[in-house]
Amino acid sequence: MADDVLKKVLVEPGDKAGLAKRSPTEDFGWDKESAKAETIKLLAKVDALQTRLAAERSRGLLFVIQAMDAAGKDGTIRSMHAGLNPAGVHVHGFKAPAGRETGMDFLWRIHEVCPARGEIGIFNRSHYEDVLVVRVKNFVPRSVWSKRYEHIRNFEKLLAAEGTRIVKVHLQISKEEQRLRLQDRIDDPTEQWKFRLGDLDDRKLWPQFMRAYEDAITETSTAYAPWYIVPGDRKWVRNLVVARLLVATLEDMNPQFPPPDESLKGLQVV
Amino acid sequence: MADDVLKKVLVEPGDKAGLAKRSPTEDFGWDKESAKAETIKLLAKVDALQTRLAAERSRGLLFVIQAMDAAGKDGTIRSMHAGLNPAGVHVHGFKAPAGRETGMDFLWRIHEVCPARGEIGIFNRSHYEDVLVVRVKNFVPRSVWSKRYEHIRNFEKLLAAEGTRIVKVHLQISKEEQRLRLQDRIDDPTEQWKFRLGDLDDRKLWPQFMRAYEDAITETSTAYAPWYIVPGDRKWVRNLVVARLLVATLEDMNPQFPPPDESLKGLQVV
Repeated sequence: MADDVLKKVLVEPGDKAGLAKRSPTEDFGWDKESAKAETIKLLAKVDALQTRLAAERSRGLLFVIQAMDAAGKDGTIRSMHAGLNPAGVHVHGFKAPAGRETGMDFLWRIHEVCPARGEIGIFNRSHYEDVLVVRVKNFVPRSVWSKRYEHIRNFEKLLAAEGTRIVKVHLQISKEEQRLRLQDRIDDPTEQWKFRLGDLDDRKLWPQFMRAYEDAITETSTAYAPWYIVPGDRKWVRNLVVARLLVATLEDMNPQFPPPDESLKGLQVV
Repeated sequence: MADDVLKKVLVEPGDKAGLAKRSPTEDFGWDKESAKAETIKLLAKVDALQTRLAAERSRGLLFVIQAMDAAGKDGTIRSMHAGLNPAGVHVHGFKAPAGRETGMDFLWRIHEVCPARGEIGIFNRSHYEDVLVVRVKNFVPRSVWSKRYEHIRNFEKLLAAEGTRIVKVHLQISKEEQRLRLQDRIDDPTEQWKFRLGDLDDRKLWPQFMRAYEDAITETSTAYAPWYIVPGDRKWVRNLVVARLLVATLEDMNPQFPPPDESLKGLQVV
């Protein structure tokens, strides 16, 4: 994938995430109107690639979207989805574990909904919550969460080896942009239903969350499941970077229709 | 829902489905270009309605799409999906039961994936297969499948009473249109992956399938879970009828934002 912007937002395996050195307001010198037009144009290419992925039926694609509250996870998935055929894509949102999930290892509920061969899966939050909020709020002791980076690497290695292409996206927003968006949710009656008072508690732990993100991304950006840190303050920048990532990934996978079935040649339906 | 076309395609509870008297080529006097334009315009209204459904979080919506092979189930769902926000809609395709499903009652796997309050669920095939293909191919004896109409009515009554609005759509295509579409799948290398030889076996049982559909729809079109028989030979007619059905249903549900939370008044995010 020769895209310079994608190279910039990639966390090279072995490198530190370097969140503090990256800017959530980065715009790569793009202009808003042409960026939006390019996003639409790119997403129009996805349908045909996705059809070939489904027809080939030998590989799946998993997009993990992970970010702070109000960082634009829903909006990003919505933008991606405009180009996707719903029959072959599944979006899974992960909330706090409940019911049977609470009695199982942290990867159980993730594994259950991973994309099958031929499918695209999009995770809105993910197993990374188990080294992020779980760490910051001390839901389990350090001795437990600190071992999870390795569990995650091993789990993703399994998925990749068995046919799943994995792309992980962190939408990075500034603390000030989050403030504006949360304030909007409080003030606008049609947005208020998205607001939880708990969002403010998490916001108070901003530095702790940043450290947890820094470690999680650094520990788990691998060749088979790389992290991309996408600037999130400007929605049109974010949407274009993610559209490029989606198309570049599918083009790199280059799925193929199965060869024509010779036994069907000349078959007439009566 | 005062739409005359929707009244025509509705199977009134207590009435026979009357498949033989309905025409899969019906176009309601519409013109293709304006029908397509109306479909796009209607679907543009869905997003705002869906947001209110999610915000209200007290009711769900389930669309069941049931039809013969190549009748356009995928295409219909794709068309609907253009207007939907992926975060709140789940599409579930049901194939022949496998694994644990084979050991459970026929409604178990259906119940598992029903839409939650605030969500929209779309079923591509459904529990109706258990009184259609299962009946036609004698997978279970008559004494078993014939009792399932009642099980289905009771199950759907439960869902409806607990907050799920249910709309069931049968896409009706002619035997000749199916022939053309299956032949396309055989002849076009980019379509061939959708073709299974078993489709031809089912096609040979066309009259038996029509009887099974007639009975299933007649037995289960209820006030709380009505069937609509949508003409399927012309995709643009089908897509417009389904778009009208989706929008009319959501407008009839008329979901509301929760009242403003007074305790948040004046709250400033810092």
